[in-house]
Amino acid sequence: MFKGEIEVRLKEGVDDPEGKNTLKTLNLLGFSEVRAVCTSRKFEILLEGRSMKEVRERLEKICQRLLANPVIHEYEIKVSKQ
Amino acid sequence: MFKGEIEVRLKEGVDDPEGKNTLKTLNLLGFSEVRAVCTSRKFEILLEGRSMKEVRERLEKICQRLLANPVIHEYEIKVSKQ
Repeated sequence: MFKGEIEVRLKEGVDDPEGKNTLKTLNLLGFSEVRAVCTSRKFEILLEGRSMKEVRERLEKICQRLLANPVIHEYEIKVSKQ
Repeated sequence: MFKGEIEVRLKEGVDDPEGKNTLKTLNLLGFSEVRAVCTSRKFEILLEGRSMKEVRERLEKICQRLLANPVIHEYEIKVSKQ
């Protein structure tokens, strides 16, 4: 069994309304030292496979088919053996 | 300037409907080797501060006040100097 850790982030220049609102709220709550907030999503995926290479290729396909929107997202994949 | 990386995860045993739906969809799309999917949220926060220790304490407070719900979430904080 393998574990894939995938982080899906917004590309640079793409608006991050959740980050902006978190920043605004933190400033309002008195955390005035906070200057910027960026958000991203992480997926931990357990999957069968024959090799790290094969699993990484499948995870790439998973990102392209479902997890990431290539217009606005970039992603990073880490694979480990369980 | 410091950078805090905060990962907010669901506690073990708490239902993760987004993970479950991602798993179901991946299986339907033909990724039948996928066995489990867990999701989490990451926040990258840029903030001013005098020391790593002080910044970590502020980030703890930020989690408790805004980013995490102690009933269902656990969180991990990493701090680095920018």
